Amino acid sequence: MSQVFNFSAGPAMIFPEVLHQAQAELTNWLGQGVSVMEVSHRGKYFMELIAEAEKDLREVYHIPDNYRVLFLQGGARGQFAALPMNLIGKKGKALYLNSGHWSATAAKEARNFAEIDEITIVENGDNTHITRLDFSDIADQYDYVHYCPNETISGVEIFEIPKVGNAVLVADMSSNILSREIDISKFGVIYAGAQKNLGPAGITLVIIRDDLIGHARKETPSIWNYATQSNSDSMINTPPTFAWYLCSLVFKHIKAMGGLKTIAERNELKAKTLYDYIDASKLYRNVVAKENRSTMNVTFITGNSELDAKFVAQATAAGLQALKGHKVLGGMRASIYNAMPLDGVEALIEFMKKFEEENLPQAQ
Amino acid sequence: MSQVFNFSAGPAMIFPEVLHQAQAELTNWLGQGVSVMEVSHRGKYFMELIAEAEKDLREVYHIPDNYRVLFLQGGARGQFAALPMNLIGKKGKALYLNSGHWSATAAKEARNFAEIDEITIVENGDNTHITRLDFSDIADQYDYVHYCPNETISGVEIFEIPKVGNAVLVADMSSNILSREIDISKFGVIYAGAQKNLGPAGITLVIIRDDLIGHARKETPSIWNYATQSNSDSMINTPPTFAWYLCSLVFKHIKAMGGLKTIAERNELKAKTLYDYIDASKLYRNVVAKENRSTMNVTFITGNSELDAKFVAQATAAGLQALKGHKVLGGMRASIYNAMPLDGVEALIEFMKKFEEENLPQAQ
Repeated sequence: MSQVFNFSAGPAMIFPEVLHQAQAELTNWLGQGVSVMEVSHRGKYFMELIAEAEKDLREVYHIPDNYRVLFLQGGARGQFAALPMNLIGKKGKALYLNSGHWSATAAKEARNFAEIDEITIVENGDNTHITRLDFSDIADQYDYVHYCPNETISGVEIFEIPKVGNAVLVADMSSNILSREIDISKFGVIYAGAQKNLGPAGITLVIIRDDLIGHARKETPSIWNYATQSNSDSMINTPPTFAWYLCSLVFKHIKAMGGLKTIAERNELKAKTLYDYIDASKLYRNVVAKENRSTMNVTFITGNSELDAKFVAQATAAGLQALKGHKVLGGMRASIYNAMPLDGVEALIEFMKKFEEENLPQAQ
Repeated sequence: MSQVFNFSAGPAMIFPEVLHQAQAELTNWLGQGVSVMEVSHRGKYFMELIAEAEKDLREVYHIPDNYRVLFLQGGARGQFAALPMNLIGKKGKALYLNSGHWSATAAKEARNFAEIDEITIVENGDNTHITRLDFSDIADQYDYVHYCPNETISGVEIFEIPKVGNAVLVADMSSNILSREIDISKFGVIYAGAQKNLGPAGITLVIIRDDLIGHARKETPSIWNYATQSNSDSMINTPPTFAWYLCSLVFKHIKAMGGLKTIAERNELKAKTLYDYIDASKLYRNVVAKENRSTMNVTFITGNSELDAKFVAQATAAGLQALKGHKVLGGMRASIYNAMPLDGVEALIEFMKKFEEENLPQAQ
């Protein structure tokens, strides 16, 4: 088989160096003769692993000292429920900014636990774009304001941080966490499922300002009570140890690559290369306004759904995997998270050119 | 290093054959050129994997057709919260049988979500034993009756199924699931964290009678709503795919070994061999009544805490790992779940004999 590139939207590609290390030591971790999966999470070696993982993550992401780092179970969708349980307080309601599928899904889940106001901030169409990011006039009516800075399905990214005055800003960064440097002090809570930029599915990162901890309602499952987990090293129950271990390897690998500055440059170059090609092409089209084009999920269409299907089938056969767009939108989607090398984008473009040459007469 | 045997209470030993297969295909699953961790959970190959995993589990565990099988996140402790959310109905309360640490912890968590009555059914001491298992006179006052058939900390196992008349019986089988054949039709819900007998930490099995599905309160997180998950192949959100994959290999391996009949015979032989030696020894003692001795977690003490510590240190140096008892009880604990071979028990007994010869004069 020629080299494979995996454009899966998630669970997504993991750095090959990380996977190879995991493979090499899968049955014998740290020379103990057992797998990292088989040891107590409370044992010396695993406790050292999680301490080091937090240290590396804090360093790479410049996490201020007044923020806690939790590793939880249940995915971002678990946090959709956990957030209102932990954060709804005196004001009794939260504001959700709807920029697409995932932010809308977060609002829908939260509504089972609290009063939720929702404002749509995206205009979809041939020039899909974000319409509003300043909520400083209304934000103080809410216990928190929630948004999703990268919508994986449509490929819409919000680069500017919403203005919410002194209100608590909560961000679902599942699909763009660690993709570039951000000013964490602007956020109350940042959370992310691991399966795009952090590691395998099954572990969820929560970065939370410490004054927001300790206000959970009684009806909060202890595995999601931020105070309980913060006081227990995220180990109120047995954590997903293998997933945590893989995240720790990813953090080390990002450090070794030169940190988020390098990662961000690489991500910008990959995205620019692909969008520039799409814009110059006569066959493919991306409908997102330039200022909101995702660096993580590049969506494109030919305008002919049969041709889209042919593209996906031929690309798959050529080793360019998982390019089918989400069923809601159709078309194609190339997810180019941190682990995707520029080589993968170049291989995709090469294939797209060839496919364009072969199919343009038919498409027009 | 001589051969290592890992007696960890959980995350526990995994069948070596399973770990070696996982290692071999970690970076190239089914010849796709990518890891099982890197593919979409909704893709053809992963959907085939979960269908096969359920089929194998149903076959091995003789799960009746009117039971659904769910694979969830959040551990057994997540289910401690999810159970009252899903099962509390007309009667408005549940009965929890307290046989030790884990059943008590389940009751404590459930109390955040419902009215819970609790009855202690264990008498601790030099002849620790279960005192009562017939609740048919009171069970119909409750939406369900919960118990934990194997308490890992004390090493107490309940082999007889509690009598609850027509009430719904719920069992936390985290530490003895798949250890022997059981009559599933006697249970409403059986649940288990994976990290002892099913696979790695981070996935939770729920086996539930289908008439109990569909009654969740509104304030139930969707990832734990049994109806939502049952209607979504346990994929309302991205599942812990790697953990699920490992469980699927464990089910296949149990089938290949001859199913639960073989597993149960092996488990009984391991436990009997170890308890017989302990009973005959002049140095070690187990305080659990014979009818409630766990086949999974064998606890023992010398009666001298310094000598216990010396035992654990020397055993560890000899490759017999994780024998330290839980901090609540002290002493030693050998967890001998499904994956532990008889060789491991024999190596432990050999070490115990040698330690006894060297230390008996000092102990008496």
